[in-house]
Amino acid sequence: MNDSLTIAEQALAAANEAKFVANNIWMMMATVLVFMMHLGFATLESGFVQRKNVVNILFKNVLIVSIGLLTYYFIGFGLMYPGIEGGYLEFAGFGLNNPPGAKGLIDYENGQYTYYTDFIFQGMFAATCCTIVSGAVAERIKLVPFLIFCLFFVTISYPITGYWKWGSGWLHTLGFYDFAGSTLVHSVGGWGALAGAILLGPRLGKYTNKGIKPIPGHSMPLAAMGVFLLWFGWFGFNGGSVLSADPGLVSLVFVTTSIAAAAGCMGSIIVSKFVYGSLDLGMALNGILGGLVGITASADGVAVSSAVAIGFIAGAIIPISVGFFDKIKIDDPVGATSVHLICGIWGTIAVAIFGNYDDGVGTIGVQLLGIVAIGGFTFMFAFIVFLLLKITVGIRVTKEEEIKGLDIGEHQTVAYS
Amino acid sequence: MNDSLTIAEQALAAANEAKFVANNIWMMMATVLVFMMHLGFATLESGFVQRKNVVNILFKNVLIVSIGLLTYYFIGFGLMYPGIEGGYLEFAGFGLNNPPGAKGLIDYENGQYTYYTDFIFQGMFAATCCTIVSGAVAERIKLVPFLIFCLFFVTISYPITGYWKWGSGWLHTLGFYDFAGSTLVHSVGGWGALAGAILLGPRLGKYTNKGIKPIPGHSMPLAAMGVFLLWFGWFGFNGGSVLSADPGLVSLVFVTTSIAAAAGCMGSIIVSKFVYGSLDLGMALNGILGGLVGITASADGVAVSSAVAIGFIAGAIIPISVGFFDKIKIDDPVGATSVHLICGIWGTIAVAIFGNYDDGVGTIGVQLLGIVAIGGFTFMFAFIVFLLLKITVGIRVTKEEEIKGLDIGEHQTVAYS
Amino acid sequence: MNDSLTIAEQALAAANEAKFVANNIWMMMATVLVFMMHLGFATLESGFVQRKNVVNILFKNVLIVSIGLLTYYFIGFGLMYPGIEGGYLEFAGFGLNNPPGAKGLIDYENGQYTYYTDFIFQGMFAATCCTIVSGAVAERIKLVPFLIFCLFFVTISYPITGYWKWGSGWLHTLGFYDFAGSTLVHSVGGWGALAGAILLGPRLGKYTNKGIKPIPGHSMPLAAMGVFLLWFGWFGFNGGSVLSADPGLVSLVFVTTSIAAAAGCMGSIIVSKFVYGSLDLGMALNGILGGLVGITASADGVAVSSAVAIGFIAGAIIPISVGFFDKIKIDDPVGATSVHLICGIWGTIAVAIFGNYDDGVGTIGVQLLGIVAIGGFTFMFAFIVFLLLKITVGIRVTKEEEIKGLDIGEHQTVAYS
Repeated sequence: MNDSLTIAEQALAAANEAKFVANNIWMMMATVLVFMMHLGFATLESGFVQRKNVVNILFKNVLIVSIGLLTYYFIGFGLMYPGIEGGYLEFAGFGLNNPPGAKGLIDYENGQYTYYTDFIFQGMFAATCCTIVSGAVAERIKLVPFLIFCLFFVTISYPITGYWKWGSGWLHTLGFYDFAGSTLVHSVGGWGALAGAILLGPRLGKYTNKGIKPIPGHSMPLAAMGVFLLWFGWFGFNGGSVLSADPGLVSLVFVTTSIAAAAGCMGSIIVSKFVYGSLDLGMALNGILGGLVGITASADGVAVSSAVAIGFIAGAIIPISVGFFDKIKIDDPVGATSVHLICGIWGTIAVAIFGNYDDGVGTIGVQLLGIVAIGGFTFMFAFIVFLLLKITVGIRVTKEEEIKGLDIGEHQTVAYS
Repeated sequence: MNDSLTIAEQALAAANEAKFVANNIWMMMATVLVFMMHLGFATLESGFVQRKNVVNILFKNVLIVSIGLLTYYFIGFGLMYPGIEGGYLEFAGFGLNNPPGAKGLIDYENGQYTYYTDFIFQGMFAATCCTIVSGAVAERIKLVPFLIFCLFFVTISYPITGYWKWGSGWLHTLGFYDFAGSTLVHSVGGWGALAGAILLGPRLGKYTNKGIKPIPGHSMPLAAMGVFLLWFGWFGFNGGSVLSADPGLVSLVFVTTSIAAAAGCMGSIIVSKFVYGSLDLGMALNGILGGLVGITASADGVAVSSAVAIGFIAGAIIPISVGFFDKIKIDDPVGATSVHLICGIWGTIAVAIFGNYDDGVGTIGVQLLGIVAIGGFTFMFAFIVFLLLKITVGIRVTKEEEIKGLDIGEHQTVAYS
Repeated sequence: MNDSLTIAEQALAAANEAKFVANNIWMMMATVLVFMMHLGFATLESGFVQRKNVVNILFKNVLIVSIGLLTYYFIGFGLMYPGIEGGYLEFAGFGLNNPPGAKGLIDYENGQYTYYTDFIFQGMFAATCCTIVSGAVAERIKLVPFLIFCLFFVTISYPITGYWKWGSGWLHTLGFYDFAGSTLVHSVGGWGALAGAILLGPRLGKYTNKGIKPIPGHSMPLAAMGVFLLWFGWFGFNGGSVLSADPGLVSLVFVTTSIAAAAGCMGSIIVSKFVYGSLDLGMALNGILGGLVGITASADGVAVSSAVAIGFIAGAIIPISVGFFDKIKIDDPVGATSVHLICGIWGTIAVAIFGNYDDGVGTIGVQLLGIVAIGGFTFMFAFIVFLLLKITVGIRVTKEEEIKGLDIGEHQTVAYS
């Protein structure tokens, strides 16, 4: 009897350990996939800008990952997540010096992955919100002021609104639902992008008396590559947001995410064919991204047929939104505000329409409240930071530099020789 | 005693759950890897076409993934796999509305992964067969007729022949073996490619009175990137075809797959050096792909030394096959028929020569029967669809458009500006 | 009682199997990630060379993977690892014909992954050391002699010094520590690079009477893509070097590796801004790589705050080292010696400064001994092989070929048309 009890207890411990190991593997792979989104953004944005600004946009994207990870390590993580000691007002402290348990292991019974996995997964997320901004302000923003903006945005603004929901803050308590961040990541990035684009003004020659001049990107293969890489990374972005390898949930998320991306592509192509009359690759690509952003808030709690609808509508919004921002003369070289802000809002509303969650979770009222509260806070934060930078060091390059290109102006080099 | 029995039963349940979670993680990662093959095809094909047709080929590749996933969701999956209710003639129904069990979980004891994982893995596979076609018909096919072809091909043709083997249909019963789809995916794509290339005719100026004019691709880095990404994806294509994370089988598949790719590279370089006298990068790249296609039918059941032979021969076939198709004036801009059709046939035959399977499985007779049956059905299906499109809406762009390029003709834009 | 004992034993076996499956999945995914580093090197190096030498560098990178895997299969693996029968002097034999156990399964209790997984993971590693060399000798080395060099380097030199530590050889016994290969892989590649660069001499026109002429790379997007892909792959390179999915260790390695990369980027940018006055993208990119190489020896045994220091210093070394090699007229088109050799040495020393290992492991004395012993052996081996090739078949292309470009000279083609 002792024997079988001992073996049974050993077996139970071993089984729990195996589950923990498997969950942790999935969360680490999700981290790796989300990391790849940074390459996706780098290629997408460099494909969509002009040849003369390619080094500059690459430099920004490379730095954002680095700054994002380092600041999230020093401050952001402790600010956003309660962890052991409480975050935000109960700020958990600088750095990662006090992981719970030996080797940073959260106890097997309750935890799904380690403290270090938690940090690195969340850190990869955090860095994406600045990358979204960089596309919208491309081709005319000064490098150093932009990096200062990023520092504040990722260190303070993103963790505070993130805490409201994911850190179990007040919006969470009220029942606001945002699975993987249609609002918390994408709209947040989009609001920052909007603030920057407004304060910078449009690129020279974009809006003339004779109408809107399209400024085509310099490399469609780079842009297309970016979208495939972002879709690739989204398997980790949404799939990892389950925060475990729960087979039913993660695989459902895979299906809803991919189906929404595919439907977004179709929605955007069909609408842009009707509205603009052309089979536009840029619209197809942004339609996929719109579908992905749209499904992000509810990927774990909608039927697959609903994912078709959510994605299709998100994609259909893209050409209309791009046209709208051009009409009100807000110049966004890569369409980041349409993709991340507008489709992010749509996705957050879609939770209330299509989501199958507990009673009182994700109602239309609380979803709108969340959109407004987070949007209001983020836009004001971003606007004030950009404004302060504008009236102190300036945020826009000189006319000469803009015409010559930022690669020469800021980096004394060219992308292709 | 009760105690230890309870704990033992708990432990067994937990252990089975852990195994299920691990298997499901692997199948999801395999899905993600196969998804990346679409970026691989997109970059390979856009690298191998001329500068003036790059947007068009990218547009096609982006749409194929989207159309492939959506149609496979609506119809293909229910047609190909028996699932719970029986597929093909016992068509399982539209959509994914009735997954077995709560949250789509197949029972722990017998299942290796969830219903949703099954769908998304198979859906990623399905979309690849059209992508293979797109390379061979590039630079001269009209966009919309091609997309209509894809719709029929991926919705009807691919699932029907797929069912014959993987849906446990008649070829399966007879002992036909095709592990991950040398025939079921690659040759099927290759037959479609051949039908399209025949009915379209060669590109203008390719075959002249003075001989064959090489039309080099516009970007070798893009093409090379494509091959690395395809190899990357093949770890999931072949490794995932084990349909579980069985350590012995999946890791053997990793070794045979990679070794065959490496040997294919050597085979192709050596033969093309002897035949054409040059160290040709395009041949090296297609040699790798040939090796990968060749090993796909038997990656789970051959010795590693046999994988060297299978891959080397597949690679050696490439330069000869490319020369042959040029001699009979079938113009294939990316070499898709040589890689996917010819090496797919070779790989299916190699099962009979090198494979270690049960008695009566993969004999030379049944392998040839499978090649002929699936090839015959697919080629006729593809030929008829392309023919009907040709005599109704037309499948080839005008001479003017072909000369100016399809980017201007079909999309009113250019890839690089 | 019998019942509960049986179930308990079943459960224990199932739990151990699940753990084995999970560990094996992680090691296979690590393999896939390391494979991607070959695409990373291919794009990095082709981005950093001139337009006229792109096909040549791609051809080399494609072949190195193939040759590396095949030779490691035929000889290297049996030479480097003792395996079942003993390696190196007790050479385990050619090929993979005698895997232990049925289907190559190492027993569940002790093993963490299969024999085949072991081979393919190590094989992907082995091929990287030649890829490091190819960058430094680019734009002027003859193709075939370079491939002959690779053959000897990866078949003999790399496995012998690898055996000294990872095969439990004499350096291991003395307490030398090199977690994932700052010395065993990166410095080894770097010493080969240095030997090649010295014997080849600089590219024409690089060092003139008027000073050093910068020869900029032809495509910054390709170079940037390479660095992101290498970082991506490094999650597998370092994470897989834990040789199991141990949650605490692997996730710590993820954090230290990424934080060091980020800090390397900052270190390199800051120093190059001070020293050269410009915000140099190439330096930012090589700074990331320097940080990654630097942390590789100790990623499993340092505090996260130490990873910041190790990475930052590694990055800061890059601009200084690049300047130094230019001053002594050793021409290295991609900066491989600075990144892999110098930062590899730094990383190996950092073990002694920051590492938390057992007493007697990784002391400064034994670390320096390892650096000198492996460096001395490798540099002499590489120097002698290159020298023999130089005095027999020659290693440098003609002046005319170098000016026209190696794409025309060696491959009769161009990268872009």
